[in-house]
Amino acid sequence: MRLMSLDPAIAARLKHDPQGLVAAVIQQYDTLEVLMVGWMDDEALSRTLTSGRTVFWSRSRREYWRKGDTSGHVQWVRSVAIDCDGDTLLVQVDQVGAACHTGSRTCFEAGGDLGAVVGGPV
Amino acid sequence: MRLMSLDPAIAARLKHDPQGLVAAVIQQYDTLEVLMVGWMDDEALSRTLTSGRTVFWSRSRREYWRKGDTSGHVQWVRSVAIDCDGDTLLVQVDQVGAACHTGSRTCFEAGGDLGAVVGGPV
Repeated sequence: MRLMSLDPAIAARLKHDPQGLVAAVIQQYDTLEVLMVGWMDDEALSRTLTSGRTVFWSRSRREYWRKGDTSGHVQWVRSVAIDCDGDTLLVQVDQVGAACHTGSRTCFEAGGDLGAVVGGPV
Repeated sequence: MRLMSLDPAIAARLKHDPQGLVAAVIQQYDTLEVLMVGWMDDEALSRTLTSGRTVFWSRSRREYWRKGDTSGHVQWVRSVAIDCDGDTLLVQVDQVGAACHTGSRTCFEAGGDLGAVVGGPV
């Protein structure tokens, strides 16, 4: 498959982890639900920015995957923002169907609540 | 400082990266803005679950930091969820002031938009 090169001005702003990756938070653009978190290297980000669909690097399978190619649960990209220190992306999408491979709308519904103590000003 | 041990049932569900960390997406509980992403090891997660405030591991400074101790911009914890494969947390908080050290409300406002091509069904 053809490798696209990421815009050097964007590449220069990225602060990769030791595996060459940044975290990508995927958020439904209208409801603002956080759907999932994936991982992108420069190539995955380049494809995400230019193709209108999210592309990730699978840390377990060590390959690129374009969301929805197997499941049909495509993520149409609306916007991609970078954070202040360049190690995280916020990708707003229009999610077709379930974001989670379990069939849940979000990966956090699938995982569940950890029962945190609720904080507040005393 | 006293180390707290994370509930073993929760620890068993976490899939850490090679640095022993999981990504924690921090979301304002009512507006659903994604404020920032931080990193937690078991100790930081334990403190976050039990103290009502977010505690992170700083990868650059290699130390724990409790959000707001320096800035006053405390994050009061509302809920913590784990994702389907245990490598990401979604922490809903009530953010006091700005989440970003730049003074912006979110770290993604501070970083800015990358100009993605917008996708959609053909």
